[in-house]
Amino acid sequence: MGNTWGHSFRVTSFGESHSRALGVVIDGCPPRLSLCEEDIQKFLDERRPGQSDLVTARKETDHVIILSGVENGRTLGTPIGLMIENEDAKPEEYSEIQKIFRPSHGDYTNFAKYGVRSASGGGRSSVRETVARVAAGAVARKILEKFLPDLHLVAYVESVKDVKLENFDPSFLRRENIYKSLVRCPSEETSEKMMELIRRVKLEGDSVGGVVRCLIFNCPIGLGEPVFDKLDADLAKAMMSLQAVKGFELGSGFQSTQMFGSEHNDLFVMKGSKVGTLSNRSGGIQGGISNGEAIDFRVAFKPTSTIFKPQQTVTEDGEEILFEMKRTRHDPCVLPRAVPIVEAMAYITLADHFLRHQRCLLEGKNFYEKQSSSSELNF
Amino acid sequence: MGNTWGHSFRVTSFGESHSRALGVVIDGCPPRLSLCEEDIQKFLDERRPGQSDLVTARKETDHVIILSGVENGRTLGTPIGLMIENEDAKPEEYSEIQKIFRPSHGDYTNFAKYGVRSASGGGRSSVRETVARVAAGAVARKILEKFLPDLHLVAYVESVKDVKLENFDPSFLRRENIYKSLVRCPSEETSEKMMELIRRVKLEGDSVGGVVRCLIFNCPIGLGEPVFDKLDADLAKAMMSLQAVKGFELGSGFQSTQMFGSEHNDLFVMKGSKVGTLSNRSGGIQGGISNGEAIDFRVAFKPTSTIFKPQQTVTEDGEEILFEMKRTRHDPCVLPRAVPIVEAMAYITLADHFLRHQRCLLEGKNFYEKQSSSSELNF
Amino acid sequence: MGNTWGHSFRVTSFGESHSRALGVVIDGCPPRLSLCEEDIQKFLDERRPGQSDLVTARKETDHVIILSGVENGRTLGTPIGLMIENEDAKPEEYSEIQKIFRPSHGDYTNFAKYGVRSASGGGRSSVRETVARVAAGAVARKILEKFLPDLHLVAYVESVKDVKLENFDPSFLRRENIYKSLVRCPSEETSEKMMELIRRVKLEGDSVGGVVRCLIFNCPIGLGEPVFDKLDADLAKAMMSLQAVKGFELGSGFQSTQMFGSEHNDLFVMKGSKVGTLSNRSGGIQGGISNGEAIDFRVAFKPTSTIFKPQQTVTEDGEEILFEMKRTRHDPCVLPRAVPIVEAMAYITLADHFLRHQRCLLEGKNFYEKQSSSSELNF
Amino acid sequence: MGNTWGHSFRVTSFGESHSRALGVVIDGCPPRLSLCEEDIQKFLDERRPGQSDLVTARKETDHVIILSGVENGRTLGTPIGLMIENEDAKPEEYSEIQKIFRPSHGDYTNFAKYGVRSASGGGRSSVRETVARVAAGAVARKILEKFLPDLHLVAYVESVKDVKLENFDPSFLRRENIYKSLVRCPSEETSEKMMELIRRVKLEGDSVGGVVRCLIFNCPIGLGEPVFDKLDADLAKAMMSLQAVKGFELGSGFQSTQMFGSEHNDLFVMKGSKVGTLSNRSGGIQGGISNGEAIDFRVAFKPTSTIFKPQQTVTEDGEEILFEMKRTRHDPCVLPRAVPIVEAMAYITLADHFLRHQRCLLEGKNFYEKQSSSSELNF
Repeated sequence: MGNTWGHSFRVTSFGESHSRALGVVIDGCPPRLSLCEEDIQKFLDERRPGQSDLVTARKETDHVIILSGVENGRTLGTPIGLMIENEDAKPEEYSEIQKIFRPSHGDYTNFAKYGVRSASGGGRSSVRETVARVAAGAVARKILEKFLPDLHLVAYVESVKDVKLENFDPSFLRRENIYKSLVRCPSEETSEKMMELIRRVKLEGDSVGGVVRCLIFNCPIGLGEPVFDKLDADLAKAMMSLQAVKGFELGSGFQSTQMFGSEHNDLFVMKGSKVGTLSNRSGGIQGGISNGEAIDFRVAFKPTSTIFKPQQTVTEDGEEILFEMKRTRHDPCVLPRAVPIVEAMAYITLADHFLRHQRCLLEGKNFYEKQSSSSELNF
Repeated sequence: MGNTWGHSFRVTSFGESHSRALGVVIDGCPPRLSLCEEDIQKFLDERRPGQSDLVTARKETDHVIILSGVENGRTLGTPIGLMIENEDAKPEEYSEIQKIFRPSHGDYTNFAKYGVRSASGGGRSSVRETVARVAAGAVARKILEKFLPDLHLVAYVESVKDVKLENFDPSFLRRENIYKSLVRCPSEETSEKMMELIRRVKLEGDSVGGVVRCLIFNCPIGLGEPVFDKLDADLAKAMMSLQAVKGFELGSGFQSTQMFGSEHNDLFVMKGSKVGTLSNRSGGIQGGISNGEAIDFRVAFKPTSTIFKPQQTVTEDGEEILFEMKRTRHDPCVLPRAVPIVEAMAYITLADHFLRHQRCLLEGKNFYEKQSSSSELNF
Repeated sequence: MGNTWGHSFRVTSFGESHSRALGVVIDGCPPRLSLCEEDIQKFLDERRPGQSDLVTARKETDHVIILSGVENGRTLGTPIGLMIENEDAKPEEYSEIQKIFRPSHGDYTNFAKYGVRSASGGGRSSVRETVARVAAGAVARKILEKFLPDLHLVAYVESVKDVKLENFDPSFLRRENIYKSLVRCPSEETSEKMMELIRRVKLEGDSVGGVVRCLIFNCPIGLGEPVFDKLDADLAKAMMSLQAVKGFELGSGFQSTQMFGSEHNDLFVMKGSKVGTLSNRSGGIQGGISNGEAIDFRVAFKPTSTIFKPQQTVTEDGEEILFEMKRTRHDPCVLPRAVPIVEAMAYITLADHFLRHQRCLLEGKNFYEKQSSSSELNF
Repeated sequence: MGNTWGHSFRVTSFGESHSRALGVVIDGCPPRLSLCEEDIQKFLDERRPGQSDLVTARKETDHVIILSGVENGRTLGTPIGLMIENEDAKPEEYSEIQKIFRPSHGDYTNFAKYGVRSASGGGRSSVRETVARVAAGAVARKILEKFLPDLHLVAYVESVKDVKLENFDPSFLRRENIYKSLVRCPSEETSEKMMELIRRVKLEGDSVGGVVRCLIFNCPIGLGEPVFDKLDADLAKAMMSLQAVKGFELGSGFQSTQMFGSEHNDLFVMKGSKVGTLSNRSGGIQGGISNGEAIDFRVAFKPTSTIFKPQQTVTEDGEEILFEMKRTRHDPCVLPRAVPIVEAMAYITLADHFLRHQRCLLEGKNFYEKQSSSSELNF
């Protein structure tokens, strides 16, 4: 259970790290939307392993095939089946860990839950599973591009361990700036330092984590459903459902606890004919509903569990052993590849809430039209 | 939409801050469970306003009525309807804010979403809505007490602004220690400092936030559903769906990003005949599934939005004004009352995952029995 | 489980026949819809027991209370809580059946499923449960009246045992014609015969069943979701979920199996500028989607299980006994009261599909506008 | 939307009649269940076209591929992805109908709903879609075979037009008797008459319908969830969601309306130490819950819409035309192939309710054990 996301834009994911294929079925996509494999492939390529020496060398072309739901480059309104075949699956590489619980992986818990585990260890716990999320995210992105053309969503690496992007510059928000950096950090200078750190850590057989920040501009006002399905609650779940994530913050986040209410409140002002706020500690969401300011959240990724140093652990038979991974294909730092995955989950979450919100707009026009959303970046 | 929580233990909430009643319908509760109003009432009483000078003076007895689903003190297996009537609703108190958007409240976004707002401003955004969550949490607690009698769940206030509970002591985990403190902090000394801070802030018409920590011992191994419905993802959503929450961390949380993998990994060891880990940076959940160690998470609450100082804002008509709340019934710090609410959402989430997990146990016995869960506290 | 209906218009029902109250929570109702208790009450009154000597004498005012979701006569977009208190509950009347399984009731199966049963025997199996459906149906009706003002839905009793309404006359479709008949049959003459039959059967302590037909005119084209959630599949489930229902037919129904394809096919023609069909054996739904012709279905109700003749049965202890009900408050024929219940479930099903269909209409206008639906009655 | 079935055993279907592939994702299957492609293939083979001159000549091997969720012949507890590639898709055959609405097909309504239609006309309305249902049904069957080994489910053709199977004989219930008949009718004599009729109709370019009956023996007592998700309501939806189905009956069905309650009631008796009923007009379900007697329902299939005679219809442009299909690959009678499809949907529905019912059995033993289910056939 638990392999379906969303209410009105429903994403059902399947596939193990080393099964024949991974994929996704998307139910609820509007009909007559322009969509082709290339739309999805370009998003998958940004996530693909083997792009640089910073990430796993596993060679997967991650070629997506549209199985259904699209004809002549347009969606039919029926379920869109997407499949990515596993090509470079080498389960034999995993024979050494067949009976061993790798520390801080999902091996033990998956075995304990199901009484069986896949050859590759964690099965659906592998980051490889996110290929399905990114494919679904590409479809969500197409929906938003069509119906909310002004929406602008961008994610980037804000920190790797103690190397942090300081002095935020609006030019950082351009996607080309971010993706020209191998580490997906928009500042060239910080990027260099991050890469240097990751290379050093890789050499030592160790790993590091960091923080991804995501910003969404021009999100329409009104997305999000109080009480349980608040927009920020769904974004938090989306991000915490990703491998290696240990924390989520909206706007001021944990820092908010160090402020007085009089410092923290976002004051309302008129921005032209529109309502906006002077600051954005709310992170673009108030009472679980988007307020038109930039949605702004951070995601903490722990250091990758796979390291190449001797570690104590136990086997399926309850034997305590000293275990050292042979150098296989793994990321010393998951951050660079995490960026498109965070984007994908954000797109999926927004598309779902955009479709859910339609019932409030049945009267044919948005009553908040004159208020609308603000496109400026104000933190 | 979005007023139902859970898959197998389904909680549907209703009610505005000033409607005739608030309540909840619980579908999926096992039959023949002992349950009476008092079981729910005692949990509600811990959340009730007006208990001390630290919290809002709104006087609600919050008397729960069981409408259905229970007969002769036992559940029937049918939906349990619970109702709490609003007694001290004073919508007239809200007349001054009828046309004003209070800064950092849900007034503006609710109005923008629905084109209408309740007399009390934010409607379902009010903390009053959590009365339904706590009532449902009491039922979830009864299920867990029956089927998982060793499970021990406790939450407490770890910090209020910069006053933080240091030097953790296992005696802090006793519920009576926590609830004898008005501020729900188990250390008497820290408690005093927190109360002093809150009283000072109240006097100034300002507000503060803080952090609640929740610990769950002896949770069975195997709860949580990869991929989307990971146990930590659902806990994150549960907590982020609460009013005023800005962040969620599992185990090492954001701090994990400052460590190397070799420092962060939790090494597996045998604890008697059971598998356990030496440290618990995973926070009791690996790959989205509970691993038998203590589940450990933190929730960041921002300072309450309601303050009694002049603030700039705008009206429904787009007029910019200077606005000062008259001193009404509000909490200068939501933390003390947040503790039972955090507990309730944790109980609800666990009960749901406990029931969902049954399909893996159809063969009549747990195959992981000899592994079982560890009851020690190891951080 | 299983107490929630619908995807976008979600109805969660609660309450036993003799619990404190029955009720319903409706999530997904659009905001700013005019709604008051009287809108619901008048629909409940049509279903209420004690209206004539043909139905149960149980005296319930069935007074509905709006608990939440409505302010100043308009919906807030939040969950609408509705409650009907049980006033004339006489569980003591049921003491004689406490340990007995009444033939063809739900007593035995409820006991077998849950290991406990309510004082009144079948608990949620009682027809009394439908009070919640009718209340929810009234809200669904308001939505359709606002957004689909031309839609016309009508149900009536077509047969009681072998007394059948022949020679269909379009004037039968006027609601006032139907509701002025105590038996809810629009022909005065047939009505008389039906009442005579029911009175005779009542005198003998026996019971009869019959068929309700439901017709929906001017339903927009395009409602219904292939594959599983076809409009007719959902209507079938809605009707089969009612007490005492044994069969469902759409359009030509079982009769269709006696025809050749060349006789059965509905030929397309232009009706003015609109596409329509010459005949309507499809019953207004093709491929699970409404086609603009009248939706037309029939529901078979078995004779009421409660009779006042000696019957063989067994007790909870497995003893075989001869059992004769004392004359309590029961319907010798459920048909008259079934009519508003069938209507309510049809309204609920349509409102849900109307809201679900919105994703296909995102481009701002219906592309089938010029086709539109036909308002004529063609069988 | 609407392409997912079930609550605890969740089946998500995808694929058009002429897309690259059709398939299904199954979420909720218990782990460690024996499963291989052959288990599914043999069920698919029973449904496959081209088996005799009675059915469509479309040549599909319908070869199923397990994409995920199974390793070493055992389920992992993760989603099972199944794919059947479309091999004999000849969309060019459909060029003649590109702009035409075939009478009583889904062409018009699909076009009206989505504003676009697949090359093959009805897209997901095609019977070809059921290949995904049958594949999922095979997995459901494996679950039931393991956990409910005594359960026996069988479906057969009871009538084709006016040729009806009379004089029911218990030997009819053996699957081999049914499947050795090309028309899936267990009586050799009736089978001959049905085939003769179908061949004659085929020659004339016409079509016929009929009735499938399904019987389920030794179903455990207690499956089914009042109120909305009654077992019979879900079976009705499952069957009405199939192409060409116009009616559903449980037990006595529409015939029940011709009886008195005193004739219709099923009297309880002790059958050895178990509770049973003397007759089975309830069709094995009372109050929406299985009672241990044989579940017994009938499904009415209309004559196939595709016929090879001139018919009046209209085009997408609103032109009225006389239309005659060229002789393509279609079934003159859908009944023979409907039998495994009805079985598949019944298996899926039962597996879902079996898993849902587990919450009532948490106390480790069935309290109704001594009552149990009866294996005799009593009508």
